[in-house]
Amino acid sequence: MYSTIGALGRRLRLGVIGGGAKSFIGPVHRAAARMDDNYEVVASVLSSDPERAKTEGVAIGIAPDRAYGSAEEMFATEKAREDGMDVVAIMSPNDSHYRYSVGAIEAGYDVICDKPLATSLDDGLDLVKRVKAAGIVFCQTFNYTGYPLVRQAMAMVRDGDIGAVRMVEAEYVQGYNYALRPDEKDGAGKNWHFVPEKTGQSLVLGDIGSHAHHLVRYVTGMNLARLVADVTTTVPGRVSPSHDHAGMLFRLDNDAPGVMWVTQAGAGAVHGLYIRVFGEKGGLEWVQETPNQLFHSRPESPALTYERGGPGLKPEARRAERIAIGHPEGYQEAFAVLYADAAEAIVARKLGKAPNRLALDFPGVVDGAHTLKFIASAVESAETGRWVDCRLGM
Amino acid sequence: MYSTIGALGRRLRLGVIGGGAKSFIGPVHRAAARMDDNYEVVASVLSSDPERAKTEGVAIGIAPDRAYGSAEEMFATEKAREDGMDVVAIMSPNDSHYRYSVGAIEAGYDVICDKPLATSLDDGLDLVKRVKAAGIVFCQTFNYTGYPLVRQAMAMVRDGDIGAVRMVEAEYVQGYNYALRPDEKDGAGKNWHFVPEKTGQSLVLGDIGSHAHHLVRYVTGMNLARLVADVTTTVPGRVSPSHDHAGMLFRLDNDAPGVMWVTQAGAGAVHGLYIRVFGEKGGLEWVQETPNQLFHSRPESPALTYERGGPGLKPEARRAERIAIGHPEGYQEAFAVLYADAAEAIVARKLGKAPNRLALDFPGVVDGAHTLKFIASAVESAETGRWVDCRLGM
Amino acid sequence: MYSTIGALGRRLRLGVIGGGAKSFIGPVHRAAARMDDNYEVVASVLSSDPERAKTEGVAIGIAPDRAYGSAEEMFATEKAREDGMDVVAIMSPNDSHYRYSVGAIEAGYDVICDKPLATSLDDGLDLVKRVKAAGIVFCQTFNYTGYPLVRQAMAMVRDGDIGAVRMVEAEYVQGYNYALRPDEKDGAGKNWHFVPEKTGQSLVLGDIGSHAHHLVRYVTGMNLARLVADVTTTVPGRVSPSHDHAGMLFRLDNDAPGVMWVTQAGAGAVHGLYIRVFGEKGGLEWVQETPNQLFHSRPESPALTYERGGPGLKPEARRAERIAIGHPEGYQEAFAVLYADAAEAIVARKLGKAPNRLALDFPGVVDGAHTLKFIASAVESAETGRWVDCRLGM
Amino acid sequence: MYSTIGALGRRLRLGVIGGGAKSFIGPVHRAAARMDDNYEVVASVLSSDPERAKTEGVAIGIAPDRAYGSAEEMFATEKAREDGMDVVAIMSPNDSHYRYSVGAIEAGYDVICDKPLATSLDDGLDLVKRVKAAGIVFCQTFNYTGYPLVRQAMAMVRDGDIGAVRMVEAEYVQGYNYALRPDEKDGAGKNWHFVPEKTGQSLVLGDIGSHAHHLVRYVTGMNLARLVADVTTTVPGRVSPSHDHAGMLFRLDNDAPGVMWVTQAGAGAVHGLYIRVFGEKGGLEWVQETPNQLFHSRPESPALTYERGGPGLKPEARRAERIAIGHPEGYQEAFAVLYADAAEAIVARKLGKAPNRLALDFPGVVDGAHTLKFIASAVESAETGRWVDCRLGM
Repeated sequence: MYSTIGALGRRLRLGVIGGGAKSFIGPVHRAAARMDDNYEVVASVLSSDPERAKTEGVAIGIAPDRAYGSAEEMFATEKAREDGMDVVAIMSPNDSHYRYSVGAIEAGYDVICDKPLATSLDDGLDLVKRVKAAGIVFCQTFNYTGYPLVRQAMAMVRDGDIGAVRMVEAEYVQGYNYALRPDEKDGAGKNWHFVPEKTGQSLVLGDIGSHAHHLVRYVTGMNLARLVADVTTTVPGRVSPSHDHAGMLFRLDNDAPGVMWVTQAGAGAVHGLYIRVFGEKGGLEWVQETPNQLFHSRPESPALTYERGGPGLKPEARRAERIAIGHPEGYQEAFAVLYADAAEAIVARKLGKAPNRLALDFPGVVDGAHTLKFIASAVESAETGRWVDCRLGM
Repeated sequence: MYSTIGALGRRLRLGVIGGGAKSFIGPVHRAAARMDDNYEVVASVLSSDPERAKTEGVAIGIAPDRAYGSAEEMFATEKAREDGMDVVAIMSPNDSHYRYSVGAIEAGYDVICDKPLATSLDDGLDLVKRVKAAGIVFCQTFNYTGYPLVRQAMAMVRDGDIGAVRMVEAEYVQGYNYALRPDEKDGAGKNWHFVPEKTGQSLVLGDIGSHAHHLVRYVTGMNLARLVADVTTTVPGRVSPSHDHAGMLFRLDNDAPGVMWVTQAGAGAVHGLYIRVFGEKGGLEWVQETPNQLFHSRPESPALTYERGGPGLKPEARRAERIAIGHPEGYQEAFAVLYADAAEAIVARKLGKAPNRLALDFPGVVDGAHTLKFIASAVESAETGRWVDCRLGM
Repeated sequence: MYSTIGALGRRLRLGVIGGGAKSFIGPVHRAAARMDDNYEVVASVLSSDPERAKTEGVAIGIAPDRAYGSAEEMFATEKAREDGMDVVAIMSPNDSHYRYSVGAIEAGYDVICDKPLATSLDDGLDLVKRVKAAGIVFCQTFNYTGYPLVRQAMAMVRDGDIGAVRMVEAEYVQGYNYALRPDEKDGAGKNWHFVPEKTGQSLVLGDIGSHAHHLVRYVTGMNLARLVADVTTTVPGRVSPSHDHAGMLFRLDNDAPGVMWVTQAGAGAVHGLYIRVFGEKGGLEWVQETPNQLFHSRPESPALTYERGGPGLKPEARRAERIAIGHPEGYQEAFAVLYADAAEAIVARKLGKAPNRLALDFPGVVDGAHTLKFIASAVESAETGRWVDCRLGM
Repeated sequence: MYSTIGALGRRLRLGVIGGGAKSFIGPVHRAAARMDDNYEVVASVLSSDPERAKTEGVAIGIAPDRAYGSAEEMFATEKAREDGMDVVAIMSPNDSHYRYSVGAIEAGYDVICDKPLATSLDDGLDLVKRVKAAGIVFCQTFNYTGYPLVRQAMAMVRDGDIGAVRMVEAEYVQGYNYALRPDEKDGAGKNWHFVPEKTGQSLVLGDIGSHAHHLVRYVTGMNLARLVADVTTTVPGRVSPSHDHAGMLFRLDNDAPGVMWVTQAGAGAVHGLYIRVFGEKGGLEWVQETPNQLFHSRPESPALTYERGGPGLKPEARRAERIAIGHPEGYQEAFAVLYADAAEAIVARKLGKAPNRLALDFPGVVDGAHTLKFIASAVESAETGRWVDCRLGM
């Protein structure tokens, strides 16, 4: 795995926005940053409430004077420090991603931002422009593409190992979060996922459909051209946009058909992120719940199982692994791969060097924009009952 | 398993139409008939060519005078024999199912017929009327519903073990038959599956989509109300109706959403018949390639795995199994369950008794008609790009 | 699959000894005989009680005059018939196998006999001599070697596909039969498996250890040279020889080490017959509960999964399969493979021809004798705590 | 997961011995220390060569003045610092564990030490005494017992969920390390695993048999009473003690029989640590390659699958997990659980408080001694061919 200590002589200094006491994703981001010893978390804004932000920052080991009460304060104060932060990681609720990203970009920071990019396509496209203009590194944490075997699948499709893509299917079938009740309380108020203005156009599509969509694009190397969708609620008492189920038919750029199924209301389902792609010469199958294997079907020969750390892997997969075959790597490790990739790109930018090609496999701002277009298109299709063009033109 | 020897004092006498030397399904039907010793195959029409029909009949052990050259000859001659046949099993190409069924019904025979019921919905509806009028037993061999664990799933949904159905997904993803070439030669001519007038409106939907569709209806206990479909060819050089891929979104009677994916062009895929259904209290998952297990997810408790022959099975599953737990039963055994069910219904009719309720779980003529409506609706949707009502009203 | 109708113009006529109303294995043998339409069951002795033997024979469809009261009566009467039986199949309790086999051989019949060959090694060795002297076909139903993928494994090892064998492990871990109670009642009396004089030297070794042992020999192509064993009872209240657990270390002919674990008291275990063998170039793994796959590990390349009906199979595997890939074959089909093999050997003998080499892969009388030596050696080792030589010299 | 920042107001300061540039386990230990933010690595001795030790220390981010050239230097210098280290972690070659542990204990440090405890039983017993006398925390990294589902299994057995233990089987079947060649070169010289004085009495038993043995003791809550073993080399050219295969039969304290199979020469095997234990009411099965599930067989009910993060888990399992169900945790996370446990015990000692009972589930010095006794006994049995008593009396 990449080491900034080797390249830069030190760890990158990270400031985090969001991810406080009750957050699921906050500890994941911070552990990902620590995993390969490329970052130290030096500054934080852990809540929109300034008082809580400071208390919670100290509670995770931030020095009291760098546990800030607002992003603006963090940007300004860190800018002035000799040992100020290098990178901003954003893991606050969905509706704040755009605002904090804009602030970080304006302050000149490289950005690691949780998905979605924004809650509207317009904001997303605006961010694309800003990132390009600023020339910063922007990593959007579609974290499942950090798994070594997903990278293997991507490289195999790209290299023609299964021939031209003929069809694809993706699923994300969960059942623990929000599976059974009409909504979820979070302390005094509603869980923000069920507050329309915070979650965006569609809960299930923003939360997990976004991952399935990105996985399809990442592995096939193609965009979706058009789709027809059934986006709905299945738990009685829920209303749009708190969707919990979406079915989708789509066509890729090359007209190959695809099917997608995502839900967070599959009672008792564990996780269920899954992709299967068939080409003219074979197929690939990957399941997030057993992420260390990739299954390769072949009409003329027995099927192959690629094993993380084992023989037959491409450099893209090798680069994303840390330990020996058979010692399972999981979700946290995959997440950390994006942090390591971003670190390499950031250090290259700092040193004015071209980054390693392989370090550029992480998802960025354009990927985030594609997902927003996808969500908007699916919702439109669900409302009209028609096929909808979902090309972004990027 | 049911025994006609116990109930009737003898085996049922079976005449078979189709299933000659090059047939895949012919030996399957005959072995299914022999499996539980409820039938002896006494008469045959194994080819539309009278000469070949006789030769091939003798080759499978039929007495020379009962290896007939045509169905008409078989019906007439057997009718006149003291020890004439009781039942007709039809396994000829798709476009002849209707014609032979009509002939058999008119001659008063009980019928076991391979799917599809017919190649047009009108013919199918006509058969429904004829079967009802004649009062005969008609078994349509949607054979996958003969698996004990499929019956377990059906009975669990019916009994409310997973609560009201909220969503369902079905797949049938194959890759060996017709996976890679534009068509398949069969000796001198084309494989009949690629001859439009023989295969019906859609190759992939008739061949395997029909099974996935029936499985959804059988397990959920509901019909499909409407659907939108993408039915297409993915192998270059193929044209409609030699479809090899279909994606589908649908709604069940209770408005629960569903997703379906069927293909015969998934390079290297093995078989891939699969169903997953979620209700308000849990989910069920069954894979035809490991048919002796049924997986039951539960949000509040660890998941259960039901094992054929093991504890916790309903009478519907128990009835459909022959040997002890852990001794795998397969495709041939499931097929034979339908023959055993039909035998019990036929004997009950002969004896003027009400059949065992559990013996009526086999698919019949109305199920065949539903499938024809489904195929017609899917093809219409694929052409118009719209959602289509697919209710049969039965 | 082999057809006697093609080769001989008719089915072989089979007489069965044992397998009456309460038998597990009786219906399995008869369905195996019917599976490929190579046999018709024409005569029976279904019980040691002559009255019951007749009643139960008629109940399974045997003509009343051929439902015999004793084996002696069957041998004598059938001998005198023009259409008398060709083959005897023995599936009575263990302690009668030797006696009935001797009778059948003396009467000149080919024999299909359930395992074990006998309850003492001396009797077994005597049978080896008698079979060789008589020149008859003797098939011992170690039925698991009828699975196509087991034959694939055997052929791969023999052909050097994994290099010289370096180690092997086998398991048979069951938990439903006799798992929890000290013994099992069977109607009025004890289940015969718990009656020492009927079951032989060791219940668990005779019942299932025998299968594991044969599987090791069949797949590796080698005999066991020496072993140390721990053969014991784990359910309180049981006493020797009603053993329910055996652990074993052994060396093959080439000094490669092996490990074996067999039990019928693994609470809740399903079936658990399993073999894993490693050679210098790779390994093979097969599990009876998913018998249609064979896993092939390779240090330098991704692992392969062979699929019944799929690419890469040897003629030995191809010969033992009936239907297309992905349509699971199970226990009953594997059992029937031995019947088909035996049929081919028997017909060849009747016609005075050399049988197809591939038809000789079924286990015979010498295999039965090896197993008896194995059981005797294991029991001796368990009593002495020492390594014991277990070579038979055949 | 436990946080020292919350309890102590700061991270523990860790000094590491061993784990330099070519080490597999060094990065694993350090990442485990960072995972939950309970430790900062402040000091190091990364090589027995002082020059390399300093260079390599700086290369992993240690301050130049704390990248020591020897353990003695580290102990002495750190002792004198205000902000000196709290804990020593030892991950150097096997033959140095004893020496460094003694040094650290004498200097008053808590110790986290890789297995084995020592290369002789005498040294191991001496360490037991020293640890007890010093009252320090000593964590032996039998890291597989950090997996949440292993802790679930341990707690279930202890709570009687499967009833009294009746039998157990354990495997560790690897094939990548040292699978095929007689030995392994490591740069200029031999890989230290193949140098007898460094590896101890038996390569395969020390390297991986130790883990299998500890897993059996941890899950069953019992010690091994006696055993018979076949410990050998299977790769031509290897000699004792470079064993690569061991089979074992044993009895637990309660006389329940066990079987063990460990090898590093299973060509192409992936990892293969596995345990299966049966009690009077059910069985448990766990496979390290899919560590997030635990399978629970039950004779009277369908089997259960426990899922990390899912319903039905005991506090011992809950305590050892970090993220939501379905997001796989792996080897690195399990390793880090021991570090978190040790941190909690160390902080409790520093604060003079009783530690949380659940924090004491990590393996300690006595566990290390049991393993040394086990290895010595197995080697003795292999040499004599006899059963050997292997009780330690602790």
